[in-house]
Amino acid sequence: MTKKYKRLPKHIGIIPDGNRRWAERQGLAKEEGYQHGIDPGFALYELCLELGIPELTFYGFTQDNTKRPAAQKAAFQKACVNAVNLLANRDASLLVVGNDKSPQFPEELKPYTTRQVFGRDLIKINFLVNYGWKWDLQNCLNQSNTNGNLLNSIASREISRIDLIIRWGGRRRLSGFLPVQSIYADFYVVDELWPDFQPQHFYDALKWYEEQDITLGG
Amino acid sequence: MTKKYKRLPKHIGIIPDGNRRWAERQGLAKEEGYQHGIDPGFALYELCLELGIPELTFYGFTQDNTKRPAAQKAAFQKACVNAVNLLANRDASLLVVGNDKSPQFPEELKPYTTRQVFGRDLIKINFLVNYGWKWDLQNCLNQSNTNGNLLNSIASREISRIDLIIRWGGRRRLSGFLPVQSIYADFYVVDELWPDFQPQHFYDALKWYEEQDITLGG
Repeated sequence: MTKKYKRLPKHIGIIPDGNRRWAERQGLAKEEGYQHGIDPGFALYELCLELGIPELTFYGFTQDNTKRPAAQKAAFQKACVNAVNLLANRDASLLVVGNDKSPQFPEELKPYTTRQVFGRDLIKINFLVNYGWKWDLQNCLNQSNTNGNLLNSIASREISRIDLIIRWGGRRRLSGFLPVQSIYADFYVVDELWPDFQPQHFYDALKWYEEQDITLGG
Repeated sequence: MTKKYKRLPKHIGIIPDGNRRWAERQGLAKEEGYQHGIDPGFALYELCLELGIPELTFYGFTQDNTKRPAAQKAAFQKACVNAVNLLANRDASLLVVGNDKSPQFPEELKPYTTRQVFGRDLIKINFLVNYGWKWDLQNCLNQSNTNGNLLNSIASREISRIDLIIRWGGRRRLSGFLPVQSIYADFYVVDELWPDFQPQHFYDALKWYEEQDITLGG
């Protein structure tokens, strides 16, 4: 069922939080939650295709996250690799952004650090993998010639401004998610945990978004 | 009445939004709203003193805001000057952060671009005045020697990490408010407009905050 909206976001950021809490509530080990976060991602991808959303960015994992226990780290790395590999069979152009000079960055994802186009290229998908906000911003300090332009010299410069951020799992914070692109984003929080994703969460976020005024700080 | 809290934020960011909408609802010209935003600021200052909150940052006005009609611009500039002058009679140390090289920056506030200590110095108060997130971050590109450290080279480097951001006026977005310091901040939105400030809004925000887990992205 395609819903009608007066105004849709051009770029949506997704913070798929709550995988570990979900696993615990199911009586599973924390790290077992991540694999249950892959299907929701594809469900959301399909909804975005259906609505014609042009760009979608997923918060995979961060440099902060890699300080977690080894079993969890291995599990979220694997979930990111699986998600990207599965998307490579679809109709998206894929970009992975994160510190790929670190051993925490999965080797399998290196080909995606430049955007790869698959199938009919119907949507841009960005994955943040071993991403760090400080790593992202500090990149401008390592450039020999920035022309004084910060936006062109951050590490995530190929990711566009975000209109709407949806965070699952109830936390009301950005946790380092693309600080520059999130400056003017409207921020919607779903209390349910990410593995419990329902299309209605997404529709509710879009309904809320279309009622927001867009001022870009003006 | 002093409320008891298990855990209080050390630094609170305040986005006092809704002055113009409030004025319109009162049948006033939009620009008349700003002067009604000063008393709420002092009420909040008193509550923070009472609770021993060490640092408070107010979103005064931004470079984006100065594109608004001249009467509005004059009104919010004046409200910021009045607020700072009134605070100078209290027990706070005051810092104004914003682009003071621009004619939009009120002359009267220039002495405060280095921190000024008043009275018993019971709390740090920061005011963002003619602030711009791009101006803030791009400052690092103008430094000859940053030692590769972004945090020490942004224009707002004297303002510490923020624990809790409270925004009045119902909008769920940061609108360029200190992107670096807001990275891990918990974000609480009050639907009421800023001139309708009530202490209970603040107490509710603190009650909510003490239930949040603090992970700093980990």
